[in-house]
Amino acid sequence: MTDTIRVAVLGAAGRMGAQTCAAVEAADGLELVARIDAGDTVDASTLAGADVAVDFTVPAATEANVHAALDAGAHVVVGTTGWDDASRGRVSEHLERANDGRPAGEGLGVLIAPNFGLSAVLAMTFAAKAARYFESAEVVELHHPDKIDAPSGTARHTAAAIARARTEAGLGAMPDATETGHEARGADVDGVRVHAVRLRGLVAHEEILLGNAGEQLVIRQDSFDRASFMPGVLLAVREVGSRPGLTVGLENVLDLG
Amino acid sequence: MTDTIRVAVLGAAGRMGAQTCAAVEAADGLELVARIDAGDTVDASTLAGADVAVDFTVPAATEANVHAALDAGAHVVVGTTGWDDASRGRVSEHLERANDGRPAGEGLGVLIAPNFGLSAVLAMTFAAKAARYFESAEVVELHHPDKIDAPSGTARHTAAAIARARTEAGLGAMPDATETGHEARGADVDGVRVHAVRLRGLVAHEEILLGNAGEQLVIRQDSFDRASFMPGVLLAVREVGSRPGLTVGLENVLDLG
Amino acid sequence: MTDTIRVAVLGAAGRMGAQTCAAVEAADGLELVARIDAGDTVDASTLAGADVAVDFTVPAATEANVHAALDAGAHVVVGTTGWDDASRGRVSEHLERANDGRPAGEGLGVLIAPNFGLSAVLAMTFAAKAARYFESAEVVELHHPDKIDAPSGTARHTAAAIARARTEAGLGAMPDATETGHEARGADVDGVRVHAVRLRGLVAHEEILLGNAGEQLVIRQDSFDRASFMPGVLLAVREVGSRPGLTVGLENVLDLG
Amino acid sequence: MTDTIRVAVLGAAGRMGAQTCAAVEAADGLELVARIDAGDTVDASTLAGADVAVDFTVPAATEANVHAALDAGAHVVVGTTGWDDASRGRVSEHLERANDGRPAGEGLGVLIAPNFGLSAVLAMTFAAKAARYFESAEVVELHHPDKIDAPSGTARHTAAAIARARTEAGLGAMPDATETGHEARGADVDGVRVHAVRLRGLVAHEEILLGNAGEQLVIRQDSFDRASFMPGVLLAVREVGSRPGLTVGLENVLDLG
Repeated sequence: MTDTIRVAVLGAAGRMGAQTCAAVEAADGLELVARIDAGDTVDASTLAGADVAVDFTVPAATEANVHAALDAGAHVVVGTTGWDDASRGRVSEHLERANDGRPAGEGLGVLIAPNFGLSAVLAMTFAAKAARYFESAEVVELHHPDKIDAPSGTARHTAAAIARARTEAGLGAMPDATETGHEARGADVDGVRVHAVRLRGLVAHEEILLGNAGEQLVIRQDSFDRASFMPGVLLAVREVGSRPGLTVGLENVLDLG
Repeated sequence: MTDTIRVAVLGAAGRMGAQTCAAVEAADGLELVARIDAGDTVDASTLAGADVAVDFTVPAATEANVHAALDAGAHVVVGTTGWDDASRGRVSEHLERANDGRPAGEGLGVLIAPNFGLSAVLAMTFAAKAARYFESAEVVELHHPDKIDAPSGTARHTAAAIARARTEAGLGAMPDATETGHEARGADVDGVRVHAVRLRGLVAHEEILLGNAGEQLVIRQDSFDRASFMPGVLLAVREVGSRPGLTVGLENVLDLG
Repeated sequence: MTDTIRVAVLGAAGRMGAQTCAAVEAADGLELVARIDAGDTVDASTLAGADVAVDFTVPAATEANVHAALDAGAHVVVGTTGWDDASRGRVSEHLERANDGRPAGEGLGVLIAPNFGLSAVLAMTFAAKAARYFESAEVVELHHPDKIDAPSGTARHTAAAIARARTEAGLGAMPDATETGHEARGADVDGVRVHAVRLRGLVAHEEILLGNAGEQLVIRQDSFDRASFMPGVLLAVREVGSRPGLTVGLENVLDLG
Repeated sequence: MTDTIRVAVLGAAGRMGAQTCAAVEAADGLELVARIDAGDTVDASTLAGADVAVDFTVPAATEANVHAALDAGAHVVVGTTGWDDASRGRVSEHLERANDGRPAGEGLGVLIAPNFGLSAVLAMTFAAKAARYFESAEVVELHHPDKIDAPSGTARHTAAAIARARTEAGLGAMPDATETGHEARGADVDGVRVHAVRLRGLVAHEEILLGNAGEQLVIRQDSFDRASFMPGVLLAVREVGSRPGLTVGLENVLDLG
């Protein structure tokens, strides 16, 4: 990879794809070499020498795109949803074959990220790290009232990660004397309560509350618009080349040591 | 009533009563003239010329105390729970008889307040006043995890007051696209969602969120300890004498014009 | 005024004016009858029978527009800045002449509002009402980092209103043991501390903190985008007709009784 | 060290010392074997076989106590203030001599912690880790109005850590268009703005705000009372034995991997 990273955007005409094209063009050290849309073939020719392909397409197309980009020798950053264990497994195998015989630390990398929002990813990561040190933990997610599901996927993931951390640390159930009144919007995710607020004017927000006797730690994250995903996408583009194999989750390319 | 207000405290040995005695003794313009406890008679002699009697006793005793204090010619401030329409009605009748024939604006007054916390009462009052101007409104109450009921009585009252204000203003149901996920701690109070957080380290807190397209108003109230009730108790003691008849709720003696 | 209120928008091609046109067209009971722009004459003919003229023009034009609209028999709602005591005085005199001889409660009205954000106006109003009941009060305003002035005008007004309420209630200086460290962004406005945060990602937000021993009341307001001004503009259009004379500040047409 | 950790508390009659004695006695796997106060000698005899000595004494005594406890073969946890480079250096040398020749991972340990509040330490640590990923960062600290210094030491440390992380990541100055209004309580610490709120009713709180275009991450920490330090003290007692040498800061014994 040269000093300048050459980037191809798949799904370049979509909302996220178009924003990614603009962000790549504005970024130091990155060069946009291809905009690929629905109907276009993905191969070495259309990728135009890209070091990294960024996929913001649709669930039905994303896996095939990743295999094609790998065949063309590009690292891949994936923001499209719809991945499951089976499709991730096939990409892992592809990467093992492709990277076979290369020195450790070299080879092609694929990063699949369900969320490119740095504040969202950091909030979830910090909450999971802190959870083992607190007696109580609850999650409040707040969204615009047109969102159909409750609680949000992000809040469910956060709560599940907190629950896992508590189990690993040997913590038992949280203190809770209530016996009635459990009919609010939200859910109990593996023993962690998630409250879902729906309010006109809001976009996407998450608040994690952690409590011990005499103290509280609150980690809050606000996503005001889609622009907030671009720093995470650019970070992924810059980091994917130095992480051979499959990586799932932006938190794994953040330097939090 | 002379310039200095003479105060008798009923239930003077209890936690709230003892704090009230101390607060009265420390306040300008107030004089503690009697401490009355369980077993003591409440009459003109034991009230010792008090202008105002403050009752922090028990549900079984409070109504009789109020009638006795009125018979002795004292105004009464009541912080004890357990009042219902019937007992409030009997006090109203007693006040009408006692004040019959007095000039308007004079006569004995009784103030029954379920909550003396200024921040709590103001939060509830402001939320109800603001509610008609917002498309969405939700309530989050946060308490220590040893509290048995959920949501709290204060949060239920707040939500009911918001619902009433919306109805009076002709607002319909709030926007809410969710169809699943309604198993969190809390309740739907007259169409207003109340979320109940239980977290070690917290005491008693309430947050009211009001939203329109592009804007949010949040009113939050924190009660960290019982000391927070004293400014409200002293205010009630100072104001009850100028409000003949029965007043329910500290908000009615606040000057919010 | 008929059941439907006919509205003319002055400055219809500007950002606020265009939003107002769209909001009026979408609102029940309002009819957009004229869009007037820079260069157009403001008179009975161009106002096209409007009951209410809304002025979102420029400081150099706004006063003349108001006089012209009054001459044409329209009520006026003004969102343009640049008004001072002298220009407001001339509008008051014009209104007195115009309304001379009309029955009380009738006559032309002008409403000049520096801020149409309901959450902003309510936050400021509630803070001023609550201030007399708290020992401490501070203001934190948070804006995007391209804003040049600090603290914001809204925060200055809020702090000044809090200071005025404290003075009227006979409260002295707030407790503050600090002697060093007063070099942060913000100001001391009449004894009320205003802290100014500048953070990429934010738009316009204000938080008022009020404290007594053991309790806190926090009133927070978030303006995420300009859409948030439209409910306030529409409210002003609906109310100005029933308030003859000059009214300054949207809070004076809110029903907070 | 046996399964049960034997603990001696130095400064056992002080506020923090007394709380530590109670917390040790209530904790699983810990045994309180000595309470040592001002005037008592610190040696193998008075330490009574303690595995860990906890020092909550006074700046004038703490260093000598640490050397004496090391001479008696105990690990030491220090919560007393007043340490500087010189005194820390002498303890480091003492530990090197004492641990000379022991296998790696064994030997005596000393943990000096300026702050045992888990929420405070985690807030500071997470803020420093996150700082490199955000364009803007500011700190708001909130305390009771009897606190003399502003901003607080914790907030200064947090801001300095954020500034260091930004420098290491090659970030430049934060965006800030303001030119006037820098007279609020607080400070500019290495380019990071710290705002200091003083409000009756509060205890000790810190909020770190991190912003990018379209998103915000807020890390907030509340210390409501001294009880909140005990989980951190107990954690230090349990961990110090497995960290030979000198460790400064509770964050270094937290498992945040």
